[in-house]
Amino acid sequence: MTVDTEDLVEALKSAVGAGQVLTGEAVSEDMAHDEALGLEPVRPAAVVKPTTTEEVASVVAWASSTGTPITARGSGTGLSGACIPHPDGVLISFENMRSIVEIDLDNHVAVVQPGVTLHELDDALKPHGLIYPVQPGENSASLGGNVATNAGGMRAVRYGVTRNQVLGLTAVLGTGEVITTGGKFVKATSGYDLTQLVIGSEGTLALATEAILRLHPRAAHAATVLVPFPDLGHVAASIPRIVGSGINPTILEYIDFITMTAITSAANLDLGVPQEIKDAAMAYLVVVLENHVDSRVEEDTQALAELCTELGGLDVYVLPPSAGSALIEARERAFWTAKAMNANEIIDVVVPRAEIPGYLDQCQVVANEYGSLVVGCGHAGDGNVHLSVFQPDPEKCHATVHGILAAGVERGGAVSGEHGIGRAKKAHLAEIEDPNKLDLMRRIKAAFDPAGILNPGAIFD
Amino acid sequence: MTVDTEDLVEALKSAVGAGQVLTGEAVSEDMAHDEALGLEPVRPAAVVKPTTTEEVASVVAWASSTGTPITARGSGTGLSGACIPHPDGVLISFENMRSIVEIDLDNHVAVVQPGVTLHELDDALKPHGLIYPVQPGENSASLGGNVATNAGGMRAVRYGVTRNQVLGLTAVLGTGEVITTGGKFVKATSGYDLTQLVIGSEGTLALATEAILRLHPRAAHAATVLVPFPDLGHVAASIPRIVGSGINPTILEYIDFITMTAITSAANLDLGVPQEIKDAAMAYLVVVLENHVDSRVEEDTQALAELCTELGGLDVYVLPPSAGSALIEARERAFWTAKAMNANEIIDVVVPRAEIPGYLDQCQVVANEYGSLVVGCGHAGDGNVHLSVFQPDPEKCHATVHGILAAGVERGGAVSGEHGIGRAKKAHLAEIEDPNKLDLMRRIKAAFDPAGILNPGAIFD
Repeated sequence: MTVDTEDLVEALKSAVGAGQVLTGEAVSEDMAHDEALGLEPVRPAAVVKPTTTEEVASVVAWASSTGTPITARGSGTGLSGACIPHPDGVLISFENMRSIVEIDLDNHVAVVQPGVTLHELDDALKPHGLIYPVQPGENSASLGGNVATNAGGMRAVRYGVTRNQVLGLTAVLGTGEVITTGGKFVKATSGYDLTQLVIGSEGTLALATEAILRLHPRAAHAATVLVPFPDLGHVAASIPRIVGSGINPTILEYIDFITMTAITSAANLDLGVPQEIKDAAMAYLVVVLENHVDSRVEEDTQALAELCTELGGLDVYVLPPSAGSALIEARERAFWTAKAMNANEIIDVVVPRAEIPGYLDQCQVVANEYGSLVVGCGHAGDGNVHLSVFQPDPEKCHATVHGILAAGVERGGAVSGEHGIGRAKKAHLAEIEDPNKLDLMRRIKAAFDPAGILNPGAIFD
Repeated sequence: MTVDTEDLVEALKSAVGAGQVLTGEAVSEDMAHDEALGLEPVRPAAVVKPTTTEEVASVVAWASSTGTPITARGSGTGLSGACIPHPDGVLISFENMRSIVEIDLDNHVAVVQPGVTLHELDDALKPHGLIYPVQPGENSASLGGNVATNAGGMRAVRYGVTRNQVLGLTAVLGTGEVITTGGKFVKATSGYDLTQLVIGSEGTLALATEAILRLHPRAAHAATVLVPFPDLGHVAASIPRIVGSGINPTILEYIDFITMTAITSAANLDLGVPQEIKDAAMAYLVVVLENHVDSRVEEDTQALAELCTELGGLDVYVLPPSAGSALIEARERAFWTAKAMNANEIIDVVVPRAEIPGYLDQCQVVANEYGSLVVGCGHAGDGNVHLSVFQPDPEKCHATVHGILAAGVERGGAVSGEHGIGRAKKAHLAEIEDPNKLDLMRRIKAAFDPAGILNPGAIFD
């Protein structure tokens, strides 16, 4: 069904009020893309900025009746192109739904609207000694976007990912119906878990307009430990030993030597590692330990240092707090460093963590086959491998990415650990994933969105 | 479609082999029920005991083509009647799929078949210093049943529930198609999370034939602390303070004084609480602290004791290890104690944990209205309230249960925290839950099971 632009604007104005509808030149270029590399921006027919769940429902109900595509947008920091709009569609921007509705200290939950950023939530939680642990990652990301992509971040090794923190949702189905799911509790078996199904569905099943988030005590004491290793095999072998020791690290990252050079250089950061160690270190392990008791951080740091030395670490550096924070921040900004260096594609495949060294060797074979440069870092504790692919030729770049993703899936992994499929990895998913599962997902989508209006073209066609 | 019994037996024998098909008197009475109170047992037309995923798929494909109902059964310890068979249907018993396929020490995962019990898995993990943390609960329960009901147990306050531990599944859809989901990793955003959707679906969407489970380090040191409080309000008020303190308890249970008397008496257990304290204690808090370092358990116990005294605890008892284990075991057996006392119904509603005292007061109002006796205990850390209802009159009993469940949902809770809906709570769910959500769930079921053969009559009609 084609909708006349004037009708569209009138319908949207009646749903959300005239001041919240933008068309034509009033739609900023920002609305046409997210941060995914190599995708063409697309301007939507209109942008609406609802302020309530009811307004969102009203827009979606109208869109459902007219077959108008709807794309949701939080902060636009996504890396899969999942919020690139449809040219004949409506972009729902959540920038005016940006309230922290409640911080419930008795139940340790926060209730937020989708436009709230991780940074804003963190600022609000600090005074209460609480933390929402899906961070550090991209702190300007919105919680709505985090729900849509099941965002992970560095603390996933200890706290899990977004789906382990979201206890309930208010969500608008593709029919315009509003449902509430879950609640301020961690357990329920009362019908299918719709909360979990909406999380990670990249705006294709329902639009979350409110989320109940689990909060955790904020540890008062922390240490950042840097361990250079001769190679990635040594880093990977150390992971089960560190996790199994019971010290329960908050962050457990690996960084290859090229990426370490790039991110420390971009951040102008000297970690005090002597040149001869740098020359011998092909891979670095970064561990953050946190505890509510200071002396336990010291004890655990000592135990970690002994363990890493035994496991072949070239040295152990307990970074001063400022350098520790700077390194984590530089690691956070690895994507921006890669982008500034003109990376052509980024990959965030996940594999069983013990597979990391063999898998990365295989990635280099694929890279060499197509003359591509592939470097990276990743969440060693959870097998989430972030790679930057440098290959200007589009066909060779696709072949490189395809080879790397397929190898990950063959080793028992998945195409994306936390960025999502969106539009950037859709072709790869179609080539790699079991078609029976994709058909099942299409049937599930039809259950939520019979008119097929919610983010058509994301995840699968 | 009605299937002739001879055809059915022939079809099943060709799918799984003659030795694995039982009919008529060969079907034991055990197969006709689980442990739910007040439901009529039903004998199935046949029982099959497959040994492989392929055999399960073959049975389900045949059932799909003939419209024959299929019910799955693990250990039969469920409390919702979800494995009561259909009289014209086939019961798939997983007792011959009882292998621990793999314990992967590098990735800290176990791969299990559905018939493996929690007890068997725990025995296999002990020598490796690892634990599957969905326990203690009913240790003779099968992992397949745990997946189907999203089992919780006492450690949920620290580790979460089954859905937080299951990383992937092999599952047979209602069409007979076999899918594999997830893998040996904690994060993925690669299409809809089918793992999470199957977990807790009580055998109505797919039959899990293999599960990848997350393992955790087994703490070497533990302490069990018992704190009598004047009332439940004091217990509930202490929960956020204890959790917020950072001591991260493994178990955080409340037990009302009637239930404490019943379970300690049934277990012949003397906890050393003097009579004058017993007389003043209307509610007890039980806390288990665990750590890999012995001195930290002692420090945390001390901090907990000081906090509980400040919060109005009547005294603090650090139980000797044998008494601690005995108390946890007695608490585990609370259901059996209630059953032995001829409870008519049990309830496992979940509410936001801060609602527990007000909610329990409201439950007493409901109980008094119908002349019922309602007593209980529960997982104070996660708001999961277990109540036994004593009311022999079926109508009054239904009204009591309905009133208690509806009050829980009104306070932001859910009908079942961990037992599931099955057949026991189906009528209540239909009366209480949003009909739009139930319709959505029916559409999701149709996506997995278009012929409607998987456990028809469980969760909803």
